Amino acid sequence: MKYHKYIEKGPMPSRQSMRELLRKAVSFNCSIEEVDLLDSLDRVTAQDIKTKRELPNLPTGKMDGIGVKAKDFAAGIPDTHSWREGCEYVFVNTGCSIIPPYDTLIMIEDVDFSKGHLIIKKLPKAGQLVDLPGSTIRRDEILLPRCTRITPPLMGLLAAGGIKKIPVFVKPKVAFIPTGDELSPWQEETLPPGKNAESNSVMVYGFLQKYQAKPLILPIVSDDREALKKALQTAAQKADIIIINAGSSKGTKDFTLEILEDEGNILVYELGCRPGKHSSFSFFRGKPVLGMAGPPNGAELAARFYLSELIDIYYGQKEKIVASITVNADFSFQPTGKADFCIQAHVYKKNNEYYAELLNAKTVTRPYLLQKCNSFIYLPAGQRIDAGEKVEAELLEGRETIDWR
Amino acid sequence: MKYHKYIEKGPMPSRQSMRELLRKAVSFNCSIEEVDLLDSLDRVTAQDIKTKRELPNLPTGKMDGIGVKAKDFAAGIPDTHSWREGCEYVFVNTGCSIIPPYDTLIMIEDVDFSKGHLIIKKLPKAGQLVDLPGSTIRRDEILLPRCTRITPPLMGLLAAGGIKKIPVFVKPKVAFIPTGDELSPWQEETLPPGKNAESNSVMVYGFLQKYQAKPLILPIVSDDREALKKALQTAAQKADIIIINAGSSKGTKDFTLEILEDEGNILVYELGCRPGKHSSFSFFRGKPVLGMAGPPNGAELAARFYLSELIDIYYGQKEKIVASITVNADFSFQPTGKADFCIQAHVYKKNNEYYAELLNAKTVTRPYLLQKCNSFIYLPAGQRIDAGEKVEAELLEGRETIDWR
Repeated sequence: MKYHKYIEKGPMPSRQSMRELLRKAVSFNCSIEEVDLLDSLDRVTAQDIKTKRELPNLPTGKMDGIGVKAKDFAAGIPDTHSWREGCEYVFVNTGCSIIPPYDTLIMIEDVDFSKGHLIIKKLPKAGQLVDLPGSTIRRDEILLPRCTRITPPLMGLLAAGGIKKIPVFVKPKVAFIPTGDELSPWQEETLPPGKNAESNSVMVYGFLQKYQAKPLILPIVSDDREALKKALQTAAQKADIIIINAGSSKGTKDFTLEILEDEGNILVYELGCRPGKHSSFSFFRGKPVLGMAGPPNGAELAARFYLSELIDIYYGQKEKIVASITVNADFSFQPTGKADFCIQAHVYKKNNEYYAELLNAKTVTRPYLLQKCNSFIYLPAGQRIDAGEKVEAELLEGRETIDWR
Repeated sequence: MKYHKYIEKGPMPSRQSMRELLRKAVSFNCSIEEVDLLDSLDRVTAQDIKTKRELPNLPTGKMDGIGVKAKDFAAGIPDTHSWREGCEYVFVNTGCSIIPPYDTLIMIEDVDFSKGHLIIKKLPKAGQLVDLPGSTIRRDEILLPRCTRITPPLMGLLAAGGIKKIPVFVKPKVAFIPTGDELSPWQEETLPPGKNAESNSVMVYGFLQKYQAKPLILPIVSDDREALKKALQTAAQKADIIIINAGSSKGTKDFTLEILEDEGNILVYELGCRPGKHSSFSFFRGKPVLGMAGPPNGAELAARFYLSELIDIYYGQKEKIVASITVNADFSFQPTGKADFCIQAHVYKKNNEYYAELLNAKTVTRPYLLQKCNSFIYLPAGQRIDAGEKVEAELLEGRETIDWR
């Protein structure tokens, strides 16, 4: 019976250094597939996509109004008493074309028909309020560069440009290997005494759906060297990215790093950021392996910070800056140890200012924590927060809803 | 041939007043369905969901270490020279159970086996580092209250609590009616001269997928009173929410508001916010009808602000505050007219500060605008922004990626 000594071996990267390390170490060969436009939400373009048409294809009115000929206004507003629709002017509705000889639009608020004749109240400038051909989408314009994540407005843009099929990157396959003798499948009706429900696979499944990756959840592997190695081999054959959950700590049965050290290549034994410090990063049979801490908070951080980064790398996405808002800390906090600390917090608004309340995972239940947590405050090692201090909080994607009090 | 006079008839609500108006005016009867846990991402719970088990179900170690009996430490650290594994102490790995008589955990860093015997370096407190039964999830605890949107960590929580089927609200059906003689289906290979490709339906389709609603895209309806009425009737029969796109302006062929005034009940003829001012809100055969401005920028705003609000109301979601970040405006802007203005902007970071660049939809192509736009700056009517001023910018969901320069 022995304890492992992997701790504080090699670099313990901060969140940002870990991201940079992943960007340097990892690359992928992505395949391309075509999807229908209506199925393209959140997919990532694999090529520049050029428009199939220019828009508008004729001059078009920007507003509701009348189309006139600029030359009729060369000497100021002319006498329009005898002007007839279809001769000297035409009606033009927003987005409808103005065909020569009409070349200028006067908005409907600047004309009057109340006395049975056209009266123009304001001198137009030649060509005003007319969208010229190609002003919305230029002929041959790139609608979306390669590596663009497709949002709803971009779907509309592609439709406008006449694109029906979109070349996108095939979703990366991500294998998830849960490990540990103490785990039972979450589906079990009755959990045996002393067993824990394996639930991280379900969280990761959700994140992978959000990140546009294909989850491949493998069965729980017991704390057995050969079984773990076999699971890693299966995962390396089938997946682009491997997650191995837990077994990278100091426990008597933590064989993961032992195998990865012998048969793979460990770049990071543990992180310089809590919770989830006992996460690792390796290669096994050429595939990137994210060793993910077991406790759900640590696993969540690893998924949000590093799994997302790996998938961003896969999809050729630039490094993200998560925007932060300035909040008043309503708590004091000083983490122990030499690692950065990512504080889970609840941000709310009061009297037009933001405040953050600490959620201490050690003193609240998991349902309470997850119901309240809407932000992270990233605290570098050695720093502390004092109540009343202003700090930067990053709101979690999809948790932008803020209470007010 | 006549122009309509709906403009400035009735209230012209700001974004916030419009939201409040929708919350007062609209209510839904939602049905409930059950989905599998793995299909529950982003769905909304229709009932409180109670755990089926407490976790842990036995006392459990918080860290890797050894389990001991607190009573052995009543008089300080005892002589452990002859202590044997399985008698006076046991090994405990993180998350594994500590079964009585062991009741206290000493972390592995605080013990030493280097001389062949156990040495305890630090006096433990009774019960330390042990998670008691129910400390992670209490027996009978509510995992998720009704009306909770399910995130990946919440999926993990449900798995931990032994929940396999989730009662969620059935997705609302949203009918989209595109209108206008100038429109051609976006699928057409060749757009006839003077025609515009109907693309808002595809954008709205994308937003509805994001918002967990079921899109029902109807064919383009020409500017014909009877055809429009028939389309509204079809939509009212099939959908929970109706969107009618354009036809609410002052054009000669804008019949939408005429029909809604005669056959329905118009609450808002136009908004007090540009772009998209020519959006409306009505009821037709008891169903809420969002009249959406035609130009894509206005349609996008209506989708982001008001369609999302309607769907939040459907799902029983609280009103959202969109968090904003403080940015330096690198432009000056003074909108004309009496409406608020929602500025489309590109936020970037430079020297550790945020900056915002104006994107003027009237002077750039639509691809350029949509590739750059990652935020909105909401400017109340009558206000202006001067270059160098600090203003609040709201980052668009899914566009949190910020450039640095």
